[in-house]
Amino acid sequence: MSMKIAVDAMGGDHAPEHPIAGALLAARELGAKIVLVGQKDRIEDILEDHQSSPNIEIVHADEVIGMDESPATALRRKRGSSIHKAAQLLREGEVGGVVSAGNTGAVMVTTKLYAGSIEGVDRPALSVVLPTLLGHVVLLDVGANIDPKSQHLVQFGVMGHFLSTQILGVENPKVGLLSIGEEAGKGTDLIREGHAALKRSPLNFIGNVESNDIYSGATDVVVCDGFTGNVVLKTSEAVVETMLYLLRDELTSSRRGKLGARLARESFRNYRKRVDYAEWGGANLLGIKGSCVICHGRSSAKAIKSGIRVALEYGHQRVSERIEEALRGLGNGETEVSSSPAAAAGSSD
Amino acid sequence: MSMKIAVDAMGGDHAPEHPIAGALLAARELGAKIVLVGQKDRIEDILEDHQSSPNIEIVHADEVIGMDESPATALRRKRGSSIHKAAQLLREGEVGGVVSAGNTGAVMVTTKLYAGSIEGVDRPALSVVLPTLLGHVVLLDVGANIDPKSQHLVQFGVMGHFLSTQILGVENPKVGLLSIGEEAGKGTDLIREGHAALKRSPLNFIGNVESNDIYSGATDVVVCDGFTGNVVLKTSEAVVETMLYLLRDELTSSRRGKLGARLARESFRNYRKRVDYAEWGGANLLGIKGSCVICHGRSSAKAIKSGIRVALEYGHQRVSERIEEALRGLGNGETEVSSSPAAAAGSSD
Repeated sequence: MSMKIAVDAMGGDHAPEHPIAGALLAARELGAKIVLVGQKDRIEDILEDHQSSPNIEIVHADEVIGMDESPATALRRKRGSSIHKAAQLLREGEVGGVVSAGNTGAVMVTTKLYAGSIEGVDRPALSVVLPTLLGHVVLLDVGANIDPKSQHLVQFGVMGHFLSTQILGVENPKVGLLSIGEEAGKGTDLIREGHAALKRSPLNFIGNVESNDIYSGATDVVVCDGFTGNVVLKTSEAVVETMLYLLRDELTSSRRGKLGARLARESFRNYRKRVDYAEWGGANLLGIKGSCVICHGRSSAKAIKSGIRVALEYGHQRVSERIEEALRGLGNGETEVSSSPAAAAGSSD
Repeated sequence: MSMKIAVDAMGGDHAPEHPIAGALLAARELGAKIVLVGQKDRIEDILEDHQSSPNIEIVHADEVIGMDESPATALRRKRGSSIHKAAQLLREGEVGGVVSAGNTGAVMVTTKLYAGSIEGVDRPALSVVLPTLLGHVVLLDVGANIDPKSQHLVQFGVMGHFLSTQILGVENPKVGLLSIGEEAGKGTDLIREGHAALKRSPLNFIGNVESNDIYSGATDVVVCDGFTGNVVLKTSEAVVETMLYLLRDELTSSRRGKLGARLARESFRNYRKRVDYAEWGGANLLGIKGSCVICHGRSSAKAIKSGIRVALEYGHQRVSERIEEALRGLGNGETEVSSSPAAAAGSSD
């Protein structure tokens, strides 16, 4: 239990306050060993206001990459940034994972470059875990590869499979391919070829699924290209925001509405929490050496803590190693992937 | 004001009751002349229960296409269906438009085949009007073309422009191209080429937009390929359903929640209405000769009436003709499209 996690203290809408507070929560509640990366003076200032923890250390980084900066430019020009330093620590094995609520593109590109991909993965993919009516679903890719080939969709499926078994504890997760109709012949060329390739794979492939299947809980893993996945994610966020706005609008437009809302405020608080995507724990960059969790820009301290928890579990459950093994087996024509979280966890001890 | 509209009496989850009730509402409240297409005996039985209207006539059609039947198979094998008959009436000029809450694919394929495209439109597109925080947005294509070329995106933009000006009354509507980042260089090849083509067009092109811009009201028309648009639409529907389910779940799980919900029930009723996509008036198949509105399968009588209203306005505002003229102008290198709803309406008198 000595794996360290680098937390980008400068990333996010509420940096450095929330990342630091989240790191302290994780250090205290999870016993996590954290390396806070960022401007040392500012970090120390904030740490002074909190009860200190022996599990926290600081690595200084001069520069800060803005939330809206171009990832490519940031990669080239800001080599002294907290994101670069965190990625370097991952590469050097100083930490087992990186957690950042900063510029998603910059974190993704930089971490991919420094840490490198695991064997068998041509293209690391960004995954998110979304709440469904029944539990959770893993959606990937949500933005790392806008133009993948069918074999990459199979790799996404394998990565999603192990995130689902090892982190969410799902046994033999169902894997679906996102399309606009359930028939195998429907969809783009990528969908048709991806469908055939996934069918041949040892995954528990249930065929094509539609967007409504994501939230109904009909499937455990949903695979798609990064363009489509990004659209699904951002559309979901936009509809959630719009629905919350309209609900508030209706409830505040009459006396009875206001009164009812005040009476039921506990229910509304729980509701907001259940649908707040900032609390879902962030996106996971799968297929790189080590773990990288990218939290939502507006993450609370609690959301950062969740991200750290996921990064730690990712390492302890040896998710990267399992993906590597499975992809090697796939290359050798194996027709099974280990699918029981209990058995898999047992074999790693 | 003598244009007739064919209403598919057999299409939808609540057929033939809701389509017939919707037709009667439209006949009475809008003075619309309706041709109900479907099984004559069943239609007459239901009409007997209502106050009759001189504006309603019936055209018999033996067969019914199920909501889940394959559109291609239905097109070939069920030539006696209500959808076929309605499309034939449109082709023969007996009606100016078709309204159906039936199998979207079957209505689209059949109507396209019978009515044909207007000049300059290579690929008719399916559009929807979605509610935003500020008003409405036209999104197209949502499923007719999964693999369009950049010139088709421009045609979609022109069609969306005229739906926005003529039906929604928007002056000089802003047209955006759906992508996953606002930079012109980002996205797939289609996005990059589409961006360049739209920039050269006389449309009020504001550049690439993201899913959150759809619902914020930042743009009036959003153009995309039919695969992406369909994913946006179905994701939106799924998130709306999930959010309503979770809200009910939270409110009914405590005494205070239940009490508050009862007190504010008027607000909740209005809220549900605002977010119920069945009430948004359906999808419009743009670019065919005549109008074709495809309502949501679970449409109420009121939603069917809205669909009929849109089909009528589409004809009266000469939307098809305006699209044809604009596309001809585009071919001749014209750099302006008529953009004022008032001026345009005036010139048609």
